[in-house]
Amino acid sequence: MEQSLPYDNRIDSESSEQVVNPWEVSAKDGGKIDYDKLIDKFGCKRLEESLIDRVERLTGRQPHKFLRRGVFFAHRDFNEILDAYESGERFYLYTGRGPSSEALHLGHLIPFMFTKYLQEAFKVPLVIQLTDDEKFMWKNLTVEESERLARENARDIIACGFDVTKTFIFSDFDHVGGAFYKNMVKVSKCVTLNKAKGIFGFSGEDHIGKLSFPAVQAAPSFPSSFPHLFPGMDKLRCLIPCAIDQDPYFRMTRDVAPRLGYSKPALIESSFFPALQGENGKMSASDPNSAIYVTDTAKDIKNKINKAKSGGHQFSVDQRELGADLEKDIPFKYLSVFLENDSELELVRKEYGEKKGSMDSGNVKKRVTEVLTEIVERHRRARAAVTDEMVEAFMAVRPLPSMFE
Amino acid sequence: MEQSLPYDNRIDSESSEQVVNPWEVSAKDGGKIDYDKLIDKFGCKRLEESLIDRVERLTGRQPHKFLRRGVFFAHRDFNEILDAYESGERFYLYTGRGPSSEALHLGHLIPFMFTKYLQEAFKVPLVIQLTDDEKFMWKNLTVEESERLARENARDIIACGFDVTKTFIFSDFDHVGGAFYKNMVKVSKCVTLNKAKGIFGFSGEDHIGKLSFPAVQAAPSFPSSFPHLFPGMDKLRCLIPCAIDQDPYFRMTRDVAPRLGYSKPALIESSFFPALQGENGKMSASDPNSAIYVTDTAKDIKNKINKAKSGGHQFSVDQRELGADLEKDIPFKYLSVFLENDSELELVRKEYGEKKGSMDSGNVKKRVTEVLTEIVERHRRARAAVTDEMVEAFMAVRPLPSMFE
Repeated sequence: MEQSLPYDNRIDSESSEQVVNPWEVSAKDGGKIDYDKLIDKFGCKRLEESLIDRVERLTGRQPHKFLRRGVFFAHRDFNEILDAYESGERFYLYTGRGPSSEALHLGHLIPFMFTKYLQEAFKVPLVIQLTDDEKFMWKNLTVEESERLARENARDIIACGFDVTKTFIFSDFDHVGGAFYKNMVKVSKCVTLNKAKGIFGFSGEDHIGKLSFPAVQAAPSFPSSFPHLFPGMDKLRCLIPCAIDQDPYFRMTRDVAPRLGYSKPALIESSFFPALQGENGKMSASDPNSAIYVTDTAKDIKNKINKAKSGGHQFSVDQRELGADLEKDIPFKYLSVFLENDSELELVRKEYGEKKGSMDSGNVKKRVTEVLTEIVERHRRARAAVTDEMVEAFMAVRPLPSMFE
Repeated sequence: MEQSLPYDNRIDSESSEQVVNPWEVSAKDGGKIDYDKLIDKFGCKRLEESLIDRVERLTGRQPHKFLRRGVFFAHRDFNEILDAYESGERFYLYTGRGPSSEALHLGHLIPFMFTKYLQEAFKVPLVIQLTDDEKFMWKNLTVEESERLARENARDIIACGFDVTKTFIFSDFDHVGGAFYKNMVKVSKCVTLNKAKGIFGFSGEDHIGKLSFPAVQAAPSFPSSFPHLFPGMDKLRCLIPCAIDQDPYFRMTRDVAPRLGYSKPALIESSFFPALQGENGKMSASDPNSAIYVTDTAKDIKNKINKAKSGGHQFSVDQRELGADLEKDIPFKYLSVFLENDSELELVRKEYGEKKGSMDSGNVKKRVTEVLTEIVERHRRARAAVTDEMVEAFMAVRPLPSMFE
């Protein structure tokens, strides 16, 4: 059973409890995010090994490392998406980004890298929402600046390698209206103010734009919001890959869907990419020291990784005697997210994390610096190759005739 | 000084106070609406004789009977609109309708008849908002039914004789998006939940769609919401003719406008067209006995007027001795709204309202039945002549090159 609404998820910085909502992620008392507790509180499910095996069987390829390594670790009805897919039904993917800053960091790339894999593996269309309206309302930005950031971020997203014949990128300021607006209004009619306060923690001093926004993020979960893509496909299911802090939006959406005669969107949810200083929060674009940006140079990356929180020991005798504390080791965490090769990762785990290993913190930092530098440089090259015409092409309101091929 | 926000205007049917807001109009203890009190509470101004004289001078024609007779009786900054007009500036008109029913009643026609006069007298463009989204959210209607009613009501509005070269009619479901949506979001960002509750009386059990809607009704007050009509005319002033129950929306809009760098819209506000049963509320489309519909036959009108609340006396001796109580006499009220000829109206006032007059209730009812029947039949003929192509023409998103001619 899904946890019923409303329940209390208020932002409360005074609290010693962990806080996870779309605007704040912080662990209890400076510790780590307790994901089991989060799953329990949100009412989603842990992504079991058996589901990942099923993905492998259905797609005929090795599951993405983010699945193998538990970066995407929770879900809602992902099993039903696989059931439907197995029986020949198709679905579409929906993900998004709030364009609040010029430069993305590595944490931002994770959902897009994973979504690209899902698009390829399942051969399905994808809609990507750029919530420029949200960022205008939450941040001290003009409408024009929010729109500009949306287009800049679209370049980074396109650089992740999406298939233009299967992908529609849109900004809210561009796209809200018509069928999309009708779905916004339909969703809004089903959510009381009390419910919205319970889910999102809004207070009386919050502006009414914030109250309106959840319906904007809900609308792309329904195929009828995109008549140019999914005409007459009102029953097409939607799968949303996202970080788990977005769960409140889609809990609300799922609650509302049956009352509108729509399918509930399914979710596949990631943990947060940890900050350089440690795993009590997520990498934040507004704190330059917490993050490795896709615009960082090889030297920046090396310096940042060198200063990252380590679980290794300063003296080699301790390191050999005890092994590193991998749970606290940010360079190792990053390696376990981004290193492609499973057996090399296993080797590092053993030689660095266990007693009498041959590796120390310096070795791991060197290796992760190489891996991240390669990713960042590849991204930079790909982004530089994204032309204005490509941005236009991805954002054009158009049918996608080969979206399921 | 304009009354500052927030203040309490909550819907409270238990209250013995009069309630006037966009969703409810009811007088204190079954008495009459106290308009002086309303002006005082809302913080608008009474429309002084001197302003009406100024309208006559500026337009070079007799002011509309609704001005001469005090049907439009209150305003905000109408004087500033006249100042600007006198100095050669132009403005645009904005009015609207919530399409909740198929058949309009006479009260619904009043703002449109008056707006048509303003459009002709000042030679200015007009935007008419059909709030199908509002009616979907407040009433038990589907989106499709709300849209259908919007188009049906557009036919009635067009039948009032608007100039298609100066008039843009739009439905929210059609038109929300783009520049219009940006203004909605800008307005929303300036209004806190507490403020919205104070102005509109929303409670925690109201849905968030209601919280979003005031920004939809605010947006047409700003010319930048219509880039196809007013490109580069961001400073163009707006004058809103409406019934005074809509004042809360525009009080909010005016409060927000300077923070967005926009001009405050001016207002010219009417009293309510009284119900057949008496002047404690407004004519309501949902209560067939309270209203004369534009679809009523001559016989319907005759029957309804015969049953209307009268201030006359049953016995002719009393009538001659005392004269009728015109304040309570609905047929006379209707006559004073719709009879064109001032001297005939003055005659009726004297011969019916004063002692020793030659008229009784039957004479007045007969005369008002003639007047209303003529209006209704003229409307019916005009409405029948409105083709689908005309509706399309008024609702087409297009520039209006001769809008100020």
